[in-house]
Formats: sequence, C-alpha cells, structure tokens
Amino acid sequence: MAELETVPQPAPAARNRGGGRQSRQAQRGGGRAQPIIAGIDRQIPTYELLGEEGLARIEAAIDTILKEVGIDFRGDARALELWRDAGADVQGERVRFEPGLVRGIITRTAPKQFTHHARNPARSVEIGRTHLVFSPAYGSPFVHDLEKGRRYGAIEDFRNFVKLAYMSPWLHHSGGTVCEPVDLPVNKRHLDMVYSHIKFSDKPFMGGVTAEERAEDSIELARIAFGTDFVDKNCVIMGNINANSPLVYDGTMSRALRAYARANQCAVVVPFILGGAMGPVTNAGAIAQSMAEAMVGVALTQLERPGAPAILGNFLSSTSLKSGSPTFGTPEPALGSLVVGQLTRRLGVPLRCSGAFTASKAADAQAMQESAVSMLAAIQCGAHFILHSAGWLEGGLVMSYEKFVMDADFCAAMHTYLRGLPVDDNALALDAFREVGPGKHFFGCAHTLKNYETAFWDSAIADNNSFEQWRDAGEKTATQRAHEKCRAMLRAYEAPPIDVAIDEALQDFIARKKAAVGDMWH
Amino acid sequence: MAELETVPQPAPAARNRGGGRQSRQAQRGGGRAQPIIAGIDRQIPTYELLGEEGLARIEAAIDTILKEVGIDFRGDARALELWRDAGADVQGERVRFEPGLVRGIITRTAPKQFTHHARNPARSVEIGRTHLVFSPAYGSPFVHDLEKGRRYGAIEDFRNFVKLAYMSPWLHHSGGTVCEPVDLPVNKRHLDMVYSHIKFSDKPFMGGVTAEERAEDSIELARIAFGTDFVDKNCVIMGNINANSPLVYDGTMSRALRAYARANQCAVVVPFILGGAMGPVTNAGAIAQSMAEAMVGVALTQLERPGAPAILGNFLSSTSLKSGSPTFGTPEPALGSLVVGQLTRRLGVPLRCSGAFTASKAADAQAMQESAVSMLAAIQCGAHFILHSAGWLEGGLVMSYEKFVMDADFCAAMHTYLRGLPVDDNALALDAFREVGPGKHFFGCAHTLKNYETAFWDSAIADNNSFEQWRDAGEKTATQRAHEKCRAMLRAYEAPPIDVAIDEALQDFIARKKAAVGDMWH
Repeated sequence: MAELETVPQPAPAARNRGGGRQSRQAQRGGGRAQPIIAGIDRQIPTYELLGEEGLARIEAAIDTILKEVGIDFRGDARALELWRDAGADVQGERVRFEPGLVRGIITRTAPKQFTHHARNPARSVEIGRTHLVFSPAYGSPFVHDLEKGRRYGAIEDFRNFVKLAYMSPWLHHSGGTVCEPVDLPVNKRHLDMVYSHIKFSDKPFMGGVTAEERAEDSIELARIAFGTDFVDKNCVIMGNINANSPLVYDGTMSRALRAYARANQCAVVVPFILGGAMGPVTNAGAIAQSMAEAMVGVALTQLERPGAPAILGNFLSSTSLKSGSPTFGTPEPALGSLVVGQLTRRLGVPLRCSGAFTASKAADAQAMQESAVSMLAAIQCGAHFILHSAGWLEGGLVMSYEKFVMDADFCAAMHTYLRGLPVDDNALALDAFREVGPGKHFFGCAHTLKNYETAFWDSAIADNNSFEQWRDAGEKTATQRAHEKCRAMLRAYEAPPIDVAIDEALQDFIARKKAAVGDMWH
Repeated sequence: MAELETVPQPAPAARNRGGGRQSRQAQRGGGRAQPIIAGIDRQIPTYELLGEEGLARIEAAIDTILKEVGIDFRGDARALELWRDAGADVQGERVRFEPGLVRGIITRTAPKQFTHHARNPARSVEIGRTHLVFSPAYGSPFVHDLEKGRRYGAIEDFRNFVKLAYMSPWLHHSGGTVCEPVDLPVNKRHLDMVYSHIKFSDKPFMGGVTAEERAEDSIELARIAFGTDFVDKNCVIMGNINANSPLVYDGTMSRALRAYARANQCAVVVPFILGGAMGPVTNAGAIAQSMAEAMVGVALTQLERPGAPAILGNFLSSTSLKSGSPTFGTPEPALGSLVVGQLTRRLGVPLRCSGAFTASKAADAQAMQESAVSMLAAIQCGAHFILHSAGWLEGGLVMSYEKFVMDADFCAAMHTYLRGLPVDDNALALDAFREVGPGKHFFGCAHTLKNYETAFWDSAIADNNSFEQWRDAGEKTATQRAHEKCRAMLRAYEAPPIDVAIDEALQDFIARKKAAVGDMWH
C-alpha cells in the first residue's frame, strides 16, 4: 500500500499519537483487502440539453424569483443579519435579492474544487471540476432484505451499510444517515452514526444536521479523529442541508448549514421539490426554484465563512397523476438534472445529484430500471457528488440490502462509462484486422490477447451464462444473487485499523455527551 | 378517425377493390380503440461523445479497413459485378475500396429520410432526420412467460406479439421475426409471419431474409396488400440484413439485400459484432469495423437500385471475461452507440440501433437495468429506427411476454424524454411563484390546475403507491404486474379491419406457395 505513505497525512491531534508502528501495520493490513478507488476523473463530456437561449431564460427566472418573491429565513436572526450586511432586502424574515447579488457572493469565494479528506488519506476524494464521487443512499427510516423483510432501521443496520460501503470499491464515500437507527434516541443517534462511520470505515463521511448542536457534535468528533488544526483548514465532514421548499430555510437547517461553514466544513445544500407540491408541475419552473433556493444556501455558507467548501444540490421529482405519489427515475427529473448541470457549471460550484432513485417497493425490475435512468442522468449532467448512489428503495423510505449491492455494481459500470471511448492506435486495432481478415475470428489474435483482460466491464451481479447454466444454478434472479453477495460481504468484513487513542477519545466524548442529557424519542 | 380520410392512401391493387363501405366502417371502428402515435419527432439534441479528432481517426480507420483488408462477398456473382462496375478492386470474392468510394455511393443517392408506409396510412412512419421509430425484438427461437415458462416459439406466440405490438401506442412498428414460429417449416414460415403482420396489425412491418426467394415472397405479399405500383414507388416492407462479421457478406444475405433494394424496399444493414469473436475487443476498432461493413451493405443497395431506401445498422456487444459469453446493456456498447450515431450523422443516412438489450434469463432487475442503459444510448445517439425495443431477453434467445410489456412502457417514458424540456412562459411558471410564495404548497394554484394532467409521464407498470397499498394489493413485482397487463391486453385484442378481398388474395398466394414445395425443417 505505497499510496498510504506517499499521500500527505492529516496531522494527528496531539493527544491521539498513541498508534505508532503497530497501528500503521494494522492500517496497511486492513487497507490491503480492498482496492482503493478514491473518486473518478471523468473523461466524457456532459450532455448539453439546452442551448444558450433556454439557459438564459431560466437564469432570468431565478433572478425574478429571488427579487420579486424572495426566500424566508425562519428562526435564524443571524442569517438575516448576514443577508442584511450583504446588501439583501430583509423585511421581517423575508429576504429579497437584487439580480446578481447571490451569484456574485458565490463566485467570489466558493471553491470550485476541494479535497474531502478521509481518515485513510488514500481514500480522500476531490469534489468539483472533472471529479465524481459516489455516496450511499441517505435518510431512510426503514430497511429491507429478502430474509427479514421490511422493518425499522437499527444501529446494527446502520453499521452494516457502513461496512458494505467500506467494502465496495465503487463507492468512494461512507455517506451520512445511511439509514435511521430508530432504536437510538433522536437526540443522541448522530453520535453513534458519526462514530460508526469513523470506526467501521475509513472513507469520507457526513455528519448530523437535525439540530445545530448535533452538527457541532459531529464536527467535534471529526476534530478528535483528524485533529483540530487540520479540521479548521481542511474539509473532513459534510452536512446535508435541505431547503424547506418552496422558498424557505427553517432555522434548524440554516443554523446547521452555518455550523458546517463556520468550521470550514462542507454544506451540501439541497432543495427537495416534488412537482405540484413544493414546486410547480413544469420542469423549467421547478429547476429555476431549485437553483434559486440552492444558490441562496450556498451563498449563506460564504457569508458565514468566505471560502468554506459547499456543494449545490438538486433533487427534482415528478408526481403520479393517478395517485399524487412522488415518482422517481422518470424522464422529467432526468432531463431536469441535465439542465441543472448546465446551470451549475455556469456558476462554477460543485454539484450534487441523486443516483439510484426509485419508487418501487421491491428491489425488482422497476427499481433497477428507474435507478438506471436516474443514475445515468446524474452521470451525464456532470454531477460531482452523487448521493443516494446505492440502496435507495421506496422513494427513500427504505434502505435495501439487495439493492445496495446491485446499485454498487451499477456504480462499477459507471466507472467504465466515465472513462469514455479511447481512440488511439491500440483501440483502433488496425493490425488485428490485418492479422485476422474476413471470415475469421478474433479469439486468439495478438490484439485480443493483449487487451482481453481489461477490455470489458464485468458485472459482479449480472448472470451472463447460458440458460442451462443459470437453470442448474437455481434460476436465481439478480435480487437473489445480490442477497447472497451481500451476506458474503458482511461475513468477510474486516474493520479498517484505527488508532486506539483516537477510538478511546471518540468513545469518551460520546459517553460524556450522552450522559449530559435525557433521551428524546421524537 | 379523421386522420384516415386526410392521409393519402396507397392505391389499392385493382384486384383488391372488394372492401367498400363496410370495410371502411370496420377500419374506423378498429382504429378507434387505439390512439395512433406514428413515430416520434425528437426535440432533444444528440449526446456528442467524441470531438472532431476522434471521429476523423475512426473514419480514417474505416477507410484503411476497406482499402487494405476489404470485404468478401461470397456466393453472389452479381454483387461482385456491381462492385467491379462501381470501380472497386475485386479479386476473387474479395472486394477492396479506395477511400471515398463507398461514402460517395451512399451520399449520392441514399435517401436521408423516407416514409415507411403502413397498411393503415395513419400509422405510416417517417424514417430519418429527427424521426424515431420503436420496433419489437427480432429473431428469438424461444419465448417465455411467467405461466408457461420457457419454450420454443410457435406461430401462436408470433401472432400474440404482433397483437401486443399493435395494441401498444408506444411501438410504432410491428417488427419482423418477433419470435421464430418453430412449429412451422423453415421454408414456409416467412409466409405466415408476413401474413400475421398484415392480418393482425396495421402497423409497418418487416419481411423474410433467410433466402432470396423468401424475401421476394414477402415483397409479393406486400404488393398484394398495398398494390404493385404503390410498392414500386414507396417503402412498405423492410428486410433486416446481417453482415457475416468480420468483413463478409454471404450470398444469402447479400441477395436478400438486393431483392429488397431492387423492389425499392428498405434493407436494414446490420453487422453483429461480439467483441473478441467477430471483431476486436476495443470499442473504437469494433466501431470502425461495424461502420465499414454496414456502409458497404448500404452502398450495395444503391448499386442495385439508386435511391432505394436503406438504414445503416449497429449491433455492438461486449463479452464477459469470466465466461466468454456476450453481455448486453453494459457501458462499452452504450458508448459505442453514441459514436456510431455521430459517424452516421456525418454520412447522412438513417441509423438503426438496438433498444432493450439484456443477457438476463429472467425479466428481472438485471434485465431492466441493462435494457434501460441500452435503450437510453439508442435514444441519445440519435437512432432513427430502434429494433429490439420490446421483449428481448437472454441475449436474444428468448422473447418474453412480461418484458415486452415492461419495455413498451419504457418506450412510453422515452416519448416524454424525447420531447425535451420546454422553456416558455408557462413552463417557467413565474406567476405560480407569485401566487404561492414561500412555505405554501402548489396543489391548488392556477398553474398546477392548468398543467397537472399533462405534466408528468405516468407509467402503466410502475407501482408508485405506498408500501401499505402495495402490500394489500399482493406485493407484486413489476414482472408480475406486467404479466397481468399482458394477459389483459391479449384478452382485449380486436383485429384491425382488413379488406376481405385482400385477405383472400394473401391466403391464396400463401396456399399456392406452400403447395409448390415440400417442408424444410432445418
């Protein structure tokens, strides 16, 4: 694992220097089990859906929404003060913005690219420009697997999904609330979640956002793991911040956003717009709203701390005419993502999109069709951070073990897709045609022998065997194969090494925090 | 059905004038049951993967393959003669082409767009430029449904798939060998297949290609249905012609190709390249080969009859490293389609791609994920005629009833996708934001009420209900729902009207043909 020695290491906090040689050896040993792919460098162009005129019209609509209608910041006096100081028109909790104000704040100081550090430096990822990071699904109260069925998520499930993400080379990130550990108190579970990310994985991760102090606890845990000075200068944790669409930030969210920015950590700012409910039913209007809300959130990170890393997020969905239910993986949000990508590139900040979306209740044909549509749109639109890349089921209510494994396999396919299509002499293979000629086969030719092993992506889940082989192996569906692979992965899991002193310091902080207050269950 | 009166009708052959008022009324009644969508006019740009340099390098490789290696025409003296007359270098059965020769033949006379006429003129489709047509899967010896399992295809299955394609508004075409009717003799089944397309559907269709005389029988049946003069001047039938990759046309195929061209009917020229077997394992080389083979086939149609309609086809696949089996719906052919689209646009002829590809043995998560990847590539690359849009399973060995219905539903989604993202005042919805404002919902606002019913695509197969609703409805997977829908469609099927005299003439021709020869079973 030469990478571990050559990549700059975060300076360990003074109190955490306990590990020494033993821990470094353990780190090498743990790392050796998994190939390390720290993000992807995309080599394909983005898919440009709209021309200049369409983009300019949507940008004008964003300006109109921000100037005429404005955005409410509710229960966050400091945010209003920051906006007033920045030159916005603040009336009560309503903030209105002259055209160019929000865009100017963003483009002046928001980083176009930054490093999101992992506990294992070889797993640190770049966010922005040509880089792309896959992160697991986020926020489901339920989990599902073929054996035990659908049930509330528990901390045991949470740890399992952290382990699975750690073991998949195709997920570069440990995620945040990979499922809600409903068996833990609402006001304490963020501690167990962040601890699990640090303990059971060494990939980058996200922290709590459901209250300002939970955000600050999460960042404090990161400081213990990475060192206080290092955290002040580098991004080591993200917080996923939802606008309360339409056109509102509630104080819980804006204060958590400011907590992350204040600590120089990354707020991922994401409006959540179900067309017809929290936004209009037409795509262009929903996009304008989503951009307006997200831009204001990203700008607020810069008012709180200029230069703080931030990601502009996008979460559009469509609605079923039959039932009024949200739908996912449909054509409209796929097109919407392409346009959000175009608009965000003109702004210059990193973009978050969502990956494997579906409304299906089962990890079935509907689920993977919808997820493929959604994920391809995120890839093609130029997203830099793809949340919900694995596991998402039932409109986000469920984290599915089997779908997690199938989605991670699709992320593997996307690694190949993002490498594009080389057109060099080896790829053109003219000597192969000269060698083989009409009517012969290419099995044994020099070009095939030279390139065969790396030529094609090979799925870990798909069955490409003959019908007879498949039948004799038990006629398993992809979902059943994923179930088996998932169980095998969890059985084979080995924890990455962690400095014992750091581990103790984390546990000590958590114990003190938990002891200080009673349990909240709602 | 005003469309039927206003669209120009093919001139009925003199002997087939029997129908009269009764048949016209029946035609109106039959047409009324189904909305008619005759192709799609795409309103989204294509996805441009490579820049000028990469495209020019592949074009140079095509020229090199054609000049240095050449292509064999085996067992077709007339094809060799046509090539010699056109200025190619013919040595034995090997034909070599100076750079520019093949391209020049194509661009001089091959139509950029043509009408593929249907028996019901309202269902005639345009092929080329911005138009796009979905056609069912083609050529599988087996069929599968959840009830009866996997078995050899029979003429009853063939008729069922013609009926299903007729009933789906999202398939514009009846296809060709929608499955092999293995219960009929090899040398006679083309007659029953073409008759089934004409009798049980009124959409455009494809004919036999497995021997020159079967191609000619197919065209003769079309002449009975459409009138001899009409057929000489218009495209009413297509033949799907495979190159025998690498770099060979066998006489059966090239003579069938010439039979279609001679009759001014459309040859769809398609190399079938499994990387590592019939072509190199690298994408750029496989694309160059595919284009070289297809271009020579399209050029031959123009030598046979300048101005004959033709489609340039593409069928790239990847290979599993584990088993050597072909794989489908993987990243490499998806990228390959994008580049084939770019190259074919520079040539100016209509492009065929393949839609719902998969290697899965079940109509499961693998099947629909792979199909979505494959279909989206065909859409994004600018294909004009998408064969295998519905039903394809198990690498083409199986036509699946359930997958047919799920794929047709995905074709519906693609109709919405291809309409793109309007950016007009209604779409931008600024008045809705002014009306609703921060923190309110859009359910009842004027813009929602005005746009709701047409705002979002609504799947006929996806379940977007709550978990509880889904559970109470029997916890059905998408495949099970598709099974039920498929059966309901077949129960509800009503044949489109057909002129009784034409029907009799078709049956008479078929009976005479069948009586003239014995049965061949291989």
